[in-house]
Amino acid sequence: MLGFTAEGAAGQRALEARLDQIVRAENMDEWMRYIVSKPIYTGSPHNKETADWMVEQFRSWGFEARLDEYQVLFPTPRVRELEMIAPTRYTARLREPTLPEDATSGIEQDRLPTFNAYSADGDVTGELVYVNYGIPGDYEELERRGISVEGKIVIARYGGSWRGIKPKVAAEHGAIGTILYSDPRDDGYFQGDVYPEGPYRMEHGVQRGAVQDMPQYPGDPLTPGVGATADAERYTVEESPTIMKIPVLPISYADALPLLSAMQGPVAPQEWRGALPITYHIGPGPARVRLHVEFNWDLTPAYNVVAVMRGSEFPDEWVVRGNHRDGWAMGAADPISGMVALMEEARAVGELTRTGWRPRRTIVYAGWDAEEPGLLGSTEWAEHRGTELQEKAVLYLNTDGNGRGFLGAGGSHTLERFVNEVAKEVTDPQTGVSIWERTRARRAVAGDAEALARADLRIAPLGSGSDYTPFLQHLGIASLNISFGGESGGGSYHSQFDSYDHYTRFGDPGFRYGVALAQTTGRMTLRFAQADVLPLQIGNYAETVGGYLDEVESLADDLRSSTERLNRLVADGSHRLAADPTETFVPPTAEGAVPYFNFSPVRNAVSRLEAVAGDVDRDFARAVADGSLGTRVAELNGILQQLEQAMTDTDGLPGRPWFRHTIYAPGFYTGYGVKTLPGIREAIEQREFHLVDAQMTRIAAALERVIAMLAEARALVAGTVS
Amino acid sequence: MLGFTAEGAAGQRALEARLDQIVRAENMDEWMRYIVSKPIYTGSPHNKETADWMVEQFRSWGFEARLDEYQVLFPTPRVRELEMIAPTRYTARLREPTLPEDATSGIEQDRLPTFNAYSADGDVTGELVYVNYGIPGDYEELERRGISVEGKIVIARYGGSWRGIKPKVAAEHGAIGTILYSDPRDDGYFQGDVYPEGPYRMEHGVQRGAVQDMPQYPGDPLTPGVGATADAERYTVEESPTIMKIPVLPISYADALPLLSAMQGPVAPQEWRGALPITYHIGPGPARVRLHVEFNWDLTPAYNVVAVMRGSEFPDEWVVRGNHRDGWAMGAADPISGMVALMEEARAVGELTRTGWRPRRTIVYAGWDAEEPGLLGSTEWAEHRGTELQEKAVLYLNTDGNGRGFLGAGGSHTLERFVNEVAKEVTDPQTGVSIWERTRARRAVAGDAEALARADLRIAPLGSGSDYTPFLQHLGIASLNISFGGESGGGSYHSQFDSYDHYTRFGDPGFRYGVALAQTTGRMTLRFAQADVLPLQIGNYAETVGGYLDEVESLADDLRSSTERLNRLVADGSHRLAADPTETFVPPTAEGAVPYFNFSPVRNAVSRLEAVAGDVDRDFARAVADGSLGTRVAELNGILQQLEQAMTDTDGLPGRPWFRHTIYAPGFYTGYGVKTLPGIREAIEQREFHLVDAQMTRIAAALERVIAMLAEARALVAGTVS
Repeated sequence: MLGFTAEGAAGQRALEARLDQIVRAENMDEWMRYIVSKPIYTGSPHNKETADWMVEQFRSWGFEARLDEYQVLFPTPRVRELEMIAPTRYTARLREPTLPEDATSGIEQDRLPTFNAYSADGDVTGELVYVNYGIPGDYEELERRGISVEGKIVIARYGGSWRGIKPKVAAEHGAIGTILYSDPRDDGYFQGDVYPEGPYRMEHGVQRGAVQDMPQYPGDPLTPGVGATADAERYTVEESPTIMKIPVLPISYADALPLLSAMQGPVAPQEWRGALPITYHIGPGPARVRLHVEFNWDLTPAYNVVAVMRGSEFPDEWVVRGNHRDGWAMGAADPISGMVALMEEARAVGELTRTGWRPRRTIVYAGWDAEEPGLLGSTEWAEHRGTELQEKAVLYLNTDGNGRGFLGAGGSHTLERFVNEVAKEVTDPQTGVSIWERTRARRAVAGDAEALARADLRIAPLGSGSDYTPFLQHLGIASLNISFGGESGGGSYHSQFDSYDHYTRFGDPGFRYGVALAQTTGRMTLRFAQADVLPLQIGNYAETVGGYLDEVESLADDLRSSTERLNRLVADGSHRLAADPTETFVPPTAEGAVPYFNFSPVRNAVSRLEAVAGDVDRDFARAVADGSLGTRVAELNGILQQLEQAMTDTDGLPGRPWFRHTIYAPGFYTGYGVKTLPGIREAIEQREFHLVDAQMTRIAAALERVIAMLAEARALVAGTVS
Repeated sequence: MLGFTAEGAAGQRALEARLDQIVRAENMDEWMRYIVSKPIYTGSPHNKETADWMVEQFRSWGFEARLDEYQVLFPTPRVRELEMIAPTRYTARLREPTLPEDATSGIEQDRLPTFNAYSADGDVTGELVYVNYGIPGDYEELERRGISVEGKIVIARYGGSWRGIKPKVAAEHGAIGTILYSDPRDDGYFQGDVYPEGPYRMEHGVQRGAVQDMPQYPGDPLTPGVGATADAERYTVEESPTIMKIPVLPISYADALPLLSAMQGPVAPQEWRGALPITYHIGPGPARVRLHVEFNWDLTPAYNVVAVMRGSEFPDEWVVRGNHRDGWAMGAADPISGMVALMEEARAVGELTRTGWRPRRTIVYAGWDAEEPGLLGSTEWAEHRGTELQEKAVLYLNTDGNGRGFLGAGGSHTLERFVNEVAKEVTDPQTGVSIWERTRARRAVAGDAEALARADLRIAPLGSGSDYTPFLQHLGIASLNISFGGESGGGSYHSQFDSYDHYTRFGDPGFRYGVALAQTTGRMTLRFAQADVLPLQIGNYAETVGGYLDEVESLADDLRSSTERLNRLVADGSHRLAADPTETFVPPTAEGAVPYFNFSPVRNAVSRLEAVAGDVDRDFARAVADGSLGTRVAELNGILQQLEQAMTDTDGLPGRPWFRHTIYAPGFYTGYGVKTLPGIREAIEQREFHLVDAQMTRIAAALERVIAMLAEARALVAGTVS
């Protein structure tokens, strides 16, 4: 067991066995039922009620608990109107119905209607253009067809990227408004039976969600980089660079059908076509719509629940364990399914202390507010307490929504071995094998050769989409994000139907995976709290970074050859000859040649890292096993605690200094989807080749810092064991 | 120019330039309008009227023309009933509507309703099971879900294979009936606007078609291997091995929607889901249907139009040029678009003779009857006159439906270079470049690296689906199949709406590609008629066969490793662990190991063939160029005429002796889709490993025969030029 002596591991296993026995599904069921009985969005009365109640709960389990409050911009809608005015008239319903099978679907009090947070105010009228997912590649297809969105209103389906990318890219191309809709292809009847017969999105279901430019920075749009305390310096709404510049509104597929049916122009490319029973046309028009939205641009208090169990030996080493507690409507799956597992984990930890046991390190449980509008609660807290967190936090362990199925794990690759060790000791509630074994089986059946050949299951690199982002990518704190899923399916995401009734029928009936989650993250929390040496492992990290570098080198080579091929076809006119002369077609133009890049600084650093990684891991393991570090263990852990920060660059990424991690970032044009080695990968992808060399140097420097710290740690260990 | 001296080539080009000038779109338009004014299925009055009219036309152009008549089994429906009896009632409409935009859609006289020819008579009632395309892989998915079709009625969508495969495989699995329908995903609104707004299949459109077991043998089900003359020995209907053993009926998606909507059971795999606005369920049931069909099992005369222009120098060397002339309903695109191009080509050839020119070889134009029910007209003719054709035919050149767009060419790879030479000299009517250049551009843009690097565009190997099959795969006559398409789109196939109105709006407005087709096939016909030496080329053939062998070797290796992987996962129980325990799942069982096969006989033969191919081509070219062959040219052509027959095996393929070609065959489970080196490829695919060695020997022997004939030909040439 990484970080433990054999004897310590035995004691740890006994502790974890007691944890397993304490965790109860019934508590999660009862708490979820209460929490999601009324809307819990940021600023709602029940949001504050449940925050206070959570504080009381944590206190009753032996924690020092409090609310950490920030004042954040959270616009709510005053006007929402969408009408098609030509070729026929249709007024969008913009409303999710009451279903007898769903007890909270008809709730009226404090109900937050369907909208996109941080849309601009606006009253615009224009022809519609269907832009598929509305990501940059889709606009290239429009260009080939000679279609501009300048002065038009685009209609984009959800999916293919984080939703905030869609209006951003639309505005970059001159659109005056954006309509987002959920195509039944993506989470409606095409995928399975719709609610209430099945879990998928019914015709009037709508996905709410935020649309500010989060890849610039998440959190309160008015206070980047600093905590949104009452007295913080703020941008005005007009000054904020992340608030969307055009109006945006989400609609259901019942509301989208009349609009899309009324369109003409070219037939959409095959990959663009959804599951509505129509021929998808791109437009522009003849459908013309008026879109009118206005918002209350108010500051609202966001309340983070923070519950602390002070460490008995290393109180200034913190294991931070968080889940958000706000939802768009009822928020049963997202996020309360994860929140109640966190609470049950905390209750179990509290229960363990009743027999005199105390954690060696400090454990901090957090229930973040205002995650839905853009990671506001966690980001403001992390910005506000950044210095202290960078000194003290040894781990940020995140969860969010949970479901039935397979272990999903992402995070820092120094923790990959640790995740595997834990996963081998948690039992899957449906099959009785370990959650590790079940996930391995799934990957093997899906054709992943590594699932049969590699000792460890890979964990995913993290992009964004939940509260780990400020910890990992802004502060450089080693982080993990854990969930179960893959067998819940469903289309309740961000709709009124993400309810207790939906979740307990389709999400995780009986909260069996709530139990598995509490057992998994509980082990992780306790191992980090109890380990002699922080359970990092360098071998997998080095191999993984080397793999990312291989990918980026291949990316450059592939882009170079595809550019050469494109330019040859442009030169000989093949595109024009291959096109149907009866349809408008604008051939692509030649692209600048892709230069050869100097990968050697990063390759040399990776090579040095790979060369020492095995020795580092062996030396640490030996030092732990023979217990010879003595009091210098704190010094070693001090180095290891800083290791992830060594991977960050204080200047951040080009054009978005808030994102500092050199290995992991959310993509500037994916929003949630990760870009590894983002400084060089995005510069190449976006053909900003002049940026590559400087970014290469920065990544190499970060890796050299890691290597130097590992050398320092080895010297410390060697001095001790000699 | 292959087969011509420089001087001969100049004369040939002049002849072809005159051909180009003679060909007129207006004739094709006028003839199509007449031919498709009434139904032209086999046995219809207008079928015979147009046959007689065609004979008159050919005679007027200077041909000796006649009708060659056979008596074939062509069942037509007496009863067609389909009713859903649970959980609700629905009576299928089974009728295509009258559209004001389509002048012949309302025709009543001699109208052939929607049905599948060679369905069994039957009156069956059972639960429905949705089987996707109904091909073998789909039944593996059913097996994983524990679903049997035993005693059930399957509903399968068109596509994924030739339609006759679907009831055959259903019956193999115990189904008692088969319903075929056209999903809008495949040729309806998902693909584009539906008729009459656009070319795609409207909700009541139905695809008719034959469903006998054609991969056993095509043609009259009662007379395999012999011409269906009046006095031929015949199977009874009951004895015929190819007539389907269960009832089959095709329906529209308007008729399919109530049935599919009423189904429950597991949600269909993603790849199975069509474009109807429902969740696709597999069943079985609760939808139960009654399917009742009965047929008139009558012999019907099939009239092949045969028009001969006797060769002036080599009357016993025949260029056979055919297109079928029967259609399921009006048959505008399929087949009259090709038939009128053939007629215009023939008229032009006739016109050329008015100035005293005569073809050196005999040209035989054919308008086949009864292609739609299963290549009956061509097959009976080829069987009936097999010996003479094997002695005399130097080429079978086929066309069928034609459309707008790009050259499509398939056939014997000894003709690949010839096709390329011709394609470089025909002008694309839309772009003004050659049809070769336009097709090359399209392939290059689609990412085909060979389109930029290889001297010749590849032609496709032929499976089945049109009248080349008896010539190529039964008799071993070098064959080509030529068409244009890719820009017509549409879903009129085998429906009442395959009409003059549809074709002239969406198929090939102005018959511009009809002209291109006549110019292309006209060149081919005339070059084969006029060449000094038959224009075969061995280099591309040898390389292509070598490539097929590479494919089959890879197939064996891939099947071996996938079997090993499967068996490992079966042994460790991964499939069970990866499955959702709340759903029925039957894990796959272990498969027998894939042995290593002795590819050396074929590899050695291919290697020898590749070694001599270049020299053969050079020797032939030199002999043609210096004209030194003298009268021995007939002897050389005699060898070349036999070359394709050397590739056939008199015992045919395992279980289907009618198919004799060792290089090309339609797949036993694809129906139309080609299997190259079928003897070994299908034995490996179908895991009949015990068949491989004997088939390997047969293919090697065929290639050795080719090599020996080429050696003989070279000796002949060398003796001449020395």
